[in-house]
Amino acid sequence: MLRYHMGWEGAGAGKKAQGKRIRPLLVLLSAIATGSNWNDFLPVAASVELIHNFSLIHDDIEDSSELRRGRETAWKKWGIPQAINAGDLLFTIAHTSLIKHSTALSDAEILEAAKLLHQTCIRLTQGQFLDMDFENREIVPVEKYWLMIEGKTAALMSCSAELGALKADPVTRQLFGEFGRSIGLAFQIQDDILGLWGETAATGKSSDSDLISKKKTLPILYALQNNETFAHQWINGITSEQEAGEAAELLRSDGTYEYTRDLVEKFTQDAVKKLKLTNLDNDAFHALLMLTDQLVARDQ
Amino acid sequence: MLRYHMGWEGAGAGKKAQGKRIRPLLVLLSAIATGSNWNDFLPVAASVELIHNFSLIHDDIEDSSELRRGRETAWKKWGIPQAINAGDLLFTIAHTSLIKHSTALSDAEILEAAKLLHQTCIRLTQGQFLDMDFENREIVPVEKYWLMIEGKTAALMSCSAELGALKADPVTRQLFGEFGRSIGLAFQIQDDILGLWGETAATGKSSDSDLISKKKTLPILYALQNNETFAHQWINGITSEQEAGEAAELLRSDGTYEYTRDLVEKFTQDAVKKLKLTNLDNDAFHALLMLTDQLVARDQ
Repeated sequence: MLRYHMGWEGAGAGKKAQGKRIRPLLVLLSAIATGSNWNDFLPVAASVELIHNFSLIHDDIEDSSELRRGRETAWKKWGIPQAINAGDLLFTIAHTSLIKHSTALSDAEILEAAKLLHQTCIRLTQGQFLDMDFENREIVPVEKYWLMIEGKTAALMSCSAELGALKADPVTRQLFGEFGRSIGLAFQIQDDILGLWGETAATGKSSDSDLISKKKTLPILYALQNNETFAHQWINGITSEQEAGEAAELLRSDGTYEYTRDLVEKFTQDAVKKLKLTNLDNDAFHALLMLTDQLVARDQ
Repeated sequence: MLRYHMGWEGAGAGKKAQGKRIRPLLVLLSAIATGSNWNDFLPVAASVELIHNFSLIHDDIEDSSELRRGRETAWKKWGIPQAINAGDLLFTIAHTSLIKHSTALSDAEILEAAKLLHQTCIRLTQGQFLDMDFENREIVPVEKYWLMIEGKTAALMSCSAELGALKADPVTRQLFGEFGRSIGLAFQIQDDILGLWGETAATGKSSDSDLISKKKTLPILYALQNNETFAHQWINGITSEQEAGEAAELLRSDGTYEYTRDLVEKFTQDAVKKLKLTNLDNDAFHALLMLTDQLVARDQ
């Protein structure tokens, strides 16, 4: 089950099914940028990627998502009970990778990393709690959205960059954490943009549009507060692809798209600013800047 | 949700809802018996109890159990999605207790303990995998049952006793682990006895009888292999309380009860033997012997 979910085996296995692997890339590039040997951080990099994948297995159950990266989800293939348990196993394996296999780190460094990773997992579940809670609420203030994505997306990205910079001085390490957080926020809002205005084929997710699945993303929350016409459509229910297309067009021209896109831009600039404050200047540093640009320009 | 599940809050909160807390007791008594300060092991004791409780939240979803310790289960109260996520949070908190709060242990000791606890969690999920897998099989050989309870019950009991003996010499530490394992096996088989011949009121679980919920426990697997009359009843389906009562009577007189009870006795004696091999002789040591006796004499 885990090998299938990781995209290594079964129908549709391969690069696309393995995801973007941004988090381990953040770990390794941050390690190199701060003068560490990337080999030493492979178990840490594996850890964050496996934590991310564990959360996807459980999220897919929680959201009743039938497709992930263009393939049937674990619970759809093996049923909810076995998928919950497989997720629990992956969670444990993720932490084991860090704790058992980080032979190049000192005991104190491993414990420091493990504490940060567990703290991050606590925040992941807090974000996920809010995300599910939103579904039962008619009105969600935009401020709550920020709390939600801080946990659901920014926490693990921040943790990844900070873990890579584990051996750097405290100030640099914190800047890497803040860099990762800003990337995470930009990344999530870009995801929201794709969920509303992107092409299904490109994202490979199960629902065509967040408008139909009634997901309370940032542009939708913003438009609910600022566009009465849209608010009425939303309350009445957007069910067909045509209605979703028309609503998406409406939100493209009323300022919602601009508002959302500006925020992606703002957090991307924040990320770049934090990284530059480290005063580093090496290949990995520039690769991190490039990665930041690519993430927000992506169409999937 | 977690405070409710732990039995601290909400309807029916109190001692009975908090469970027997055997695992933390094993940690603390093993610590004292091997000359450690029990205060130093409180975060470890909390860890194993929280791991146990995390597994119960997810098990209850996986088994569709509506009652736990006489109260509504978490998923029944808050729905499956929120209960999965609450379980994930408890899992993280459990590990955090050990890693972050064991201030009286050295970094090397904490890592050693964390590795053992994670290894145990892997075995827990393996046992749970088999348990669920059994439900889809007509025939389960008794040998598979042993594999299943090694993971599902013995692993965490073994881990608890071994963790308490963390500061002892390697031989003593291993003996405590084996002691805990034997207690775990005896404990689980005693649970199987209660599930077939015990009083519902005493156990507080949701299904009246393992015969009705079609749980493949040791006495049932044994009787399926050795009693054709019972095998026919089982295949036809035991649905009423009266049928279950009659089948339980049948298995009490055909040797199944004796076989099962003898195994509880055997593993209890194994546990006592391992403990005595440590050549310890102090109050906590004798308390562990008493605990062993009480566990297998329990009626709930």
